[in-house]
Amino acid sequence: MATHIDLNCDLGEGYGAWTLGDPGADDALLALVTSANVACGFHAGDPAIMAARCRTAAGRGVAVGAHVGYRDLVGFGRRPLDVPADVLAAEVAYQVGALQAVARSVGARVGYVKPHGALYNRVVRDEDQALAVVRGVAGADAGLALVGLPGSAVLRHAAEAGLRTVTEAFVDRGYRADGTLAPRGSAGSLVTDPDEAAARAVRMARDGLVTAVDGTDVAVDAQSLCVHSDTPGAVPVARAVRAALEAAGIDLRPVAP
Amino acid sequence: MATHIDLNCDLGEGYGAWTLGDPGADDALLALVTSANVACGFHAGDPAIMAARCRTAAGRGVAVGAHVGYRDLVGFGRRPLDVPADVLAAEVAYQVGALQAVARSVGARVGYVKPHGALYNRVVRDEDQALAVVRGVAGADAGLALVGLPGSAVLRHAAEAGLRTVTEAFVDRGYRADGTLAPRGSAGSLVTDPDEAAARAVRMARDGLVTAVDGTDVAVDAQSLCVHSDTPGAVPVARAVRAALEAAGIDLRPVAP
Amino acid sequence: MATHIDLNCDLGEGYGAWTLGDPGADDALLALVTSANVACGFHAGDPAIMAARCRTAAGRGVAVGAHVGYRDLVGFGRRPLDVPADVLAAEVAYQVGALQAVARSVGARVGYVKPHGALYNRVVRDEDQALAVVRGVAGADAGLALVGLPGSAVLRHAAEAGLRTVTEAFVDRGYRADGTLAPRGSAGSLVTDPDEAAARAVRMARDGLVTAVDGTDVAVDAQSLCVHSDTPGAVPVARAVRAALEAAGIDLRPVAP
Amino acid sequence: MATHIDLNCDLGEGYGAWTLGDPGADDALLALVTSANVACGFHAGDPAIMAARCRTAAGRGVAVGAHVGYRDLVGFGRRPLDVPADVLAAEVAYQVGALQAVARSVGARVGYVKPHGALYNRVVRDEDQALAVVRGVAGADAGLALVGLPGSAVLRHAAEAGLRTVTEAFVDRGYRADGTLAPRGSAGSLVTDPDEAAARAVRMARDGLVTAVDGTDVAVDAQSLCVHSDTPGAVPVARAVRAALEAAGIDLRPVAP
Repeated sequence: MATHIDLNCDLGEGYGAWTLGDPGADDALLALVTSANVACGFHAGDPAIMAARCRTAAGRGVAVGAHVGYRDLVGFGRRPLDVPADVLAAEVAYQVGALQAVARSVGARVGYVKPHGALYNRVVRDEDQALAVVRGVAGADAGLALVGLPGSAVLRHAAEAGLRTVTEAFVDRGYRADGTLAPRGSAGSLVTDPDEAAARAVRMARDGLVTAVDGTDVAVDAQSLCVHSDTPGAVPVARAVRAALEAAGIDLRPVAP
Repeated sequence: MATHIDLNCDLGEGYGAWTLGDPGADDALLALVTSANVACGFHAGDPAIMAARCRTAAGRGVAVGAHVGYRDLVGFGRRPLDVPADVLAAEVAYQVGALQAVARSVGARVGYVKPHGALYNRVVRDEDQALAVVRGVAGADAGLALVGLPGSAVLRHAAEAGLRTVTEAFVDRGYRADGTLAPRGSAGSLVTDPDEAAARAVRMARDGLVTAVDGTDVAVDAQSLCVHSDTPGAVPVARAVRAALEAAGIDLRPVAP
Repeated sequence: MATHIDLNCDLGEGYGAWTLGDPGADDALLALVTSANVACGFHAGDPAIMAARCRTAAGRGVAVGAHVGYRDLVGFGRRPLDVPADVLAAEVAYQVGALQAVARSVGARVGYVKPHGALYNRVVRDEDQALAVVRGVAGADAGLALVGLPGSAVLRHAAEAGLRTVTEAFVDRGYRADGTLAPRGSAGSLVTDPDEAAARAVRMARDGLVTAVDGTDVAVDAQSLCVHSDTPGAVPVARAVRAALEAAGIDLRPVAP
Repeated sequence: MATHIDLNCDLGEGYGAWTLGDPGADDALLALVTSANVACGFHAGDPAIMAARCRTAAGRGVAVGAHVGYRDLVGFGRRPLDVPADVLAAEVAYQVGALQAVARSVGARVGYVKPHGALYNRVVRDEDQALAVVRGVAGADAGLALVGLPGSAVLRHAAEAGLRTVTEAFVDRGYRADGTLAPRGSAGSLVTDPDEAAARAVRMARDGLVTAVDGTDVAVDAQSLCVHSDTPGAVPVARAVRAALEAAGIDLRPVAP
């Protein structure tokens, strides 16, 4: 269906002297994706890393998004947290604004926001936290887009608040027949073969379909495709996905530059 | 000399459940000062506290400034840190942007930046860190003013970078004959009597003079007067200072609204 | 029934320059209680504060306990956290050992462990986290006692692991007819009147009974009575409780010195 | 001269999900060294990582040391910090005790303490901080050894306090003619060739000599040889060093088991 699509990836997920896995992966990914979700210091990232990623992204025409998370460095934002709505809204605005200023200082600008990890999962259904995220984003800058799961509470609240919404699908995660993701650890939950991920990406972008873990076809509505960066094979997967999309005549371009 | 002056104070210096001293002091001070230096989360402050202080400040017409510090919560930003210039610039931009977004989300806006604690002292003379602070501020928003010590390296670099500069003097600190502050702990280094602080404030604002600890008169060039908030008597001092300035016909108004 | 009882209180709940409420409360409380639950740096507390509290406690014959919590400074350990059992056990051992060494360095010693806040509540019923806490305590030092709610999972696991267990009741919290605490915010959930708290303390210690919020009598089995320290009236409540217990001929002595 | 020597290495320098460089390096190094300096959570390390390293070390007969540092995660303990002596002593005791308890909980025990990074360098000459480190170690456990630079203030204070002292030399760092280390970045400051490092190690252990960057021979007095772990080539260097020492008939054994 689509003649163009966005390709996004989480980046800048280090802290001080630390990195996740291969220290060179971010640079390689910034040559492949069209949108970089940059960690903002709550679950990962620090000002120096944020500045470095924004600078590279700007130099390569890659869009920059604020990857906002729970305030939990030691847990990498993967542990659900019962944060009161007012606090969460302020925390989201804080992270967005911090990245905006760091980006400006190196000649980049932030185009969108995407929640990370446990917060991403929580705002699929938790109305209070979803609304808090939307309030934080809109309060910081009503011109920002919000990236999330199709049908999620957070995208619904974002649309109601007048924010632009962007749906995404995961090229390296298995889907169940009902369109939800197969839980990590279950059979078929991860797609690590670059060629398979690439084929899925093309089908998602062109046909709006993905083969679920039970073999049935499931509709996916995605304006952006996400490649995870925290696995050893992220770079080859991203490279194969990009090449396959281009070969299929699907243009890669940022959805929220 | 002056017919008007700014009165600034550090606020929002809590963290999570914690406060410094009297939990009600910030609210009382926000009824007395014209500019609130709000901590941005590196030496103190968190998004919820920042939002609360910005909301109150906006409601009372008090200007909001980003009180940026070293990344050192446990040391309250009072320990000098050898932060590389690039990192420091990014850290300053980060803090400024974070407060800007939080402020926007509650209907306030940030007008200026003032370094805190050990960073404030360091950028009086340290050219590298002074320049880094200026780069961080200008990178985040070239429309912001920078508050600092008259004659400091940071104000000189700020002026060269085209930032508006604001000089300040301390109504509750003793001065030496050479115009520098008497070190904490030395005789006369703190002025805790509200009436004495008020008399000094009026003389600073009206005559541009202060009596040094050795009894000589020293010239002070200040567009803003600072009342410290981390002492038990901060509120009575601020109240007496405001009343005395008003009684002397000196208008209190924010220098960087 | 009892001729003696322990009186415990949470202390050292500051961080760096920060305190909760009145900075002098800890010192006053250390003249009233027989056991001090000292925060170990995860939800509050830092090495310098821990050392200061241990030194004062040792000088006054007050027993020292490790008040262990979730790793969440900004949330003050009051937010439930899904920490894997292995990680939680290591975190508990870490906190216990840290306090033990700090205590030793100032001539004190740690006699017991008590979970804090959200962790305290969680290990009443969560078998995995309860067992993890017990493994952490026993792994650090099998000679330590564990303080908790009568009937809680954590005390059951502690007893099975051969740890000494200590039951506690709250003199300043309302009870429901089933022996559980009235939720904060509900009617009668807090007992702030010193005389009322004192009368309840005597009845708990002497008769093993407390009047529930619905007026019925409830049995409480407590070897230690807890006075909360994070309320403005903590000191007068503790003073009244101590005086009333002494007047009733009930000896105050540490249960795990 | 020596017929045996210790080989130590810094380990466990991750945090939460993060590692420094190769995630598998620690395991490989624990098969080569005789003493593991385990980070204690202030500059790196967390309870789960500490437990894992202690467990592996204990299983392989590797001695465990507390690698204590400044409280500066984002700076990885490499930035000098002006910590008051009382605070520093408490921070050292805290870290030592934390590791002791975590080690006990997995069947290991801590035999020695070694300062990390900026603290290591500072206590070579800073008498106050050196004494504070010694007080922290002795306060926690007077049976622990202290590892440091020959001739350093910290070893002198340790000896005066009755602590066992252990001198160390660096097989992968260049020395100047006066016996001090060539500053990082200067010519010859790093020895990355495994064979060269191995030859130096043998000469250090057997002859008490090292060739300085200017070609002269310098005496080194070392009971332990340190291999740095934060470089890509740490594992091959450690492997070559161990093999060469064994081939030279020098026994590898922990100096403070």
